[in-house]
Amino acid sequence: MKQTKGKILSAGAKLVWQKGFNDTGLQEILKDAGVPKGSFYFYFDSKESFGLELIDVYISFFERELDGIMLDKSKGGLVRIKEFLDFFKMVLKKENYTGGCPLGNLALEMGDINERFAERISRGFDQIESKILGCIKDAIKSGDVPKSVDAEAAAGFILNSWEGAIVRVKVEKSLKPLELLEDFIFNKILK
Amino acid sequence: MKQTKGKILSAGAKLVWQKGFNDTGLQEILKDAGVPKGSFYFYFDSKESFGLELIDVYISFFERELDGIMLDKSKGGLVRIKEFLDFFKMVLKKENYTGGCPLGNLALEMGDINERFAERISRGFDQIESKILGCIKDAIKSGDVPKSVDAEAAAGFILNSWEGAIVRVKVEKSLKPLELLEDFIFNKILK
Repeated sequence: MKQTKGKILSAGAKLVWQKGFNDTGLQEILKDAGVPKGSFYFYFDSKESFGLELIDVYISFFERELDGIMLDKSKGGLVRIKEFLDFFKMVLKKENYTGGCPLGNLALEMGDINERFAERISRGFDQIESKILGCIKDAIKSGDVPKSVDAEAAAGFILNSWEGAIVRVKVEKSLKPLELLEDFIFNKILK
Repeated sequence: MKQTKGKILSAGAKLVWQKGFNDTGLQEILKDAGVPKGSFYFYFDSKESFGLELIDVYISFFERELDGIMLDKSKGGLVRIKEFLDFFKMVLKKENYTGGCPLGNLALEMGDINERFAERISRGFDQIESKILGCIKDAIKSGDVPKSVDAEAAAGFILNSWEGAIVRVKVEKSLKPLELLEDFIFNKILK
């Protein structure tokens, strides 16, 4: 049973990432998941509750991919931030600059119209921000970033600016906005 | 005739801003515009060509609102950037943190799936960026921003980071991300 639910969430995560939440039909998800029609409501109360679980799937994906990089204390904080940025540049290039950040997409699509989505996505952003914060704090401790830098503010600003760079990547079809961000992070924000 | 087309675009601009392009139905637009059903295809070849004209409507709105602020040479470049930021903080507060940037919304919704939308939105971002660039150049000329600042890079980064701050505003329901951006613009990016 758990496996079927996982299949639905996994197929849904991919479709919603590509097409948005409202434009993804339940039948389409079930077809891609290879799950019999009609079984959706056995696992989810509503499309909304499915969507809320989807946010957790995205956050888990981020954490799975990021934790190996962001929590690796054998490397300096700045190196880890660089690797985090590089990882997503690689993903975006592989995806031909499409897809972007699933949380950012959902924030813009659902943030205004569904308070529960907004809250859950906001918590997701906080979780990612806290990983960046950990890296900055380590970099301050090791002297790679000056003590005068406000780590909390910088972590929030880096995450927000990363989301904004992604918006621009989607229409420019180049990594330039992310390279610009990188330049500002290492030469201004963390200086 | 022109008036009817304008009514359709104006009603469409509002609905698409609130609900996204794909979720806004043509009948709904015509109803809000007070225009007889069926007259849509008299003015537009397709929903796509309507959407592309809508992007121009958004850019014109930005220019109309911004030019008074951004081109006012009687004020210093930094003051104009601050007024630009304040203007949109005021709008977002008035709209209860909803709506966000119509171009950013469309970039995330349509950038991946329609190349013509992506190109037109990208050009719109370039136009807004050039206004910010003008202010930074003036501020460098007047000595309010050091010559060492790369004006082009800073203008691009400020616009992208502003788009990202808006993503976060939508789910946090507060102006904090924009205040954080402001702090970084005046204390780091333009220093």
